[in-house]
Amino acid sequence: MQFFYHPHLFSDNIVLSAEESNHCAKALRKKPGEYIFITDGKGNLAKGKLLNRDWNACVIHLVGLQENYGVRKMELHLAISPTKNPDRMEWLVEKSIEIGVEKLTFIICEHSERPRLDLERMKRVGISALKQSNTTWLPYMEILSYRDFMIQHGDVQVHKFIAWCDDSNEKQLTDQLITMNKVMLLIGPEGDFSEEEIQLAKHYHFTEVKLGNRRLRTETAGLYGCCVLAGKAEEK
Amino acid sequence: MQFFYHPHLFSDNIVLSAEESNHCAKALRKKPGEYIFITDGKGNLAKGKLLNRDWNACVIHLVGLQENYGVRKMELHLAISPTKNPDRMEWLVEKSIEIGVEKLTFIICEHSERPRLDLERMKRVGISALKQSNTTWLPYMEILSYRDFMIQHGDVQVHKFIAWCDDSNEKQLTDQLITMNKVMLLIGPEGDFSEEEIQLAKHYHFTEVKLGNRRLRTETAGLYGCCVLAGKAEEK
Repeated sequence: MQFFYHPHLFSDNIVLSAEESNHCAKALRKKPGEYIFITDGKGNLAKGKLLNRDWNACVIHLVGLQENYGVRKMELHLAISPTKNPDRMEWLVEKSIEIGVEKLTFIICEHSERPRLDLERMKRVGISALKQSNTTWLPYMEILSYRDFMIQHGDVQVHKFIAWCDDSNEKQLTDQLITMNKVMLLIGPEGDFSEEEIQLAKHYHFTEVKLGNRRLRTETAGLYGCCVLAGKAEEK
Repeated sequence: MQFFYHPHLFSDNIVLSAEESNHCAKALRKKPGEYIFITDGKGNLAKGKLLNRDWNACVIHLVGLQENYGVRKMELHLAISPTKNPDRMEWLVEKSIEIGVEKLTFIICEHSERPRLDLERMKRVGISALKQSNTTWLPYMEILSYRDFMIQHGDVQVHKFIAWCDDSNEKQLTDQLITMNKVMLLIGPEGDFSEEEIQLAKHYHFTEVKLGNRRLRTETAGLYGCCVLAGKAEEK
């Protein structure tokens, strides 16, 4: 089963974007009358019949819609510093969507090697990952400075974890009991969070955790978090 | 700190391979008299002084050796079916070494899309990953048919898990109590294990587990296993 992407599914007929139409009619050679599945990245999955064969504008007549298709009980908000090489962030976006993440904030920290990121490109990578992995949830993505992140999200009532390389800390993320269905996990840059950033996280009652016992690269640490929490997602 | 690789460290002087010499003298411009660190991929880390500046044959005088440098208490033996696209197995080799894996068997299953793999290439990828992630353990790698794997390894007294997509099975890998320090995890091909393969695993007392609640790609499933077990590696 191959999913297509369209941002709005609540109408009788939709027109796929040029890119999606090309994929549908040209690459996969779908013919008028054939049924396809379309997700909006918001947890909805529609079934629709292809009406034409236009490589730039496939018209789909929607015949059915399932809400909350494969949506997890857990909401993971991953906040991670961009890496110097943007390919490594694309890789993280792709793999984290496959494993499960509901929200992605790229946080610009004091030691972040790259203070910006092409968010539109990340969203395109996300849509591609969504289709490939047959999931229906495209995480909301944003870029914020560390301080703005804390002001906007620091006060929410969720499980809040910050991963950093403090040798005196022995708490493993994998051992944490997850009782709420919302989790926030912060991953710092290669040079780690600054002392001030750690203090701010403590002020907002983040729990400091370790991700295994090796010093992982930023993007590997992010994926590690998604993996460990994915197994806990259905425990509640 | 940058690690170099040499398979034998128990002598006074060693000569780096052409590839390593090039990396050391040409790319990183190390000069005679400078100290470098070398691992043999067997848990040993040596410190040595560069004696010459030959881009093809750097001579290193070893001055110190630390055994069991960063070696984990857990031994993870990951057995995984090769994917159709070998790039995805290279990716798994690279990332699993970063997170932690002690042995890698590529198992040829009934539904494996690719019945072979360039093992030498995987070892080269492994050495590169070893150096990049500053670890000292290069997993032993082999290719075996599923049946031969079971004959050779099925009887060992370790925690044995087999991951497969049976909806009636609710046991998550992340919830398993790991009391022994040796773990074996089997990951099947995209088309999953055959019924006969599952029966053989049951005969050898493998525990069936789930890896989260999504159907992951083979290589993502492998990495998921490494992540979940890495957090448990120091619990014993």
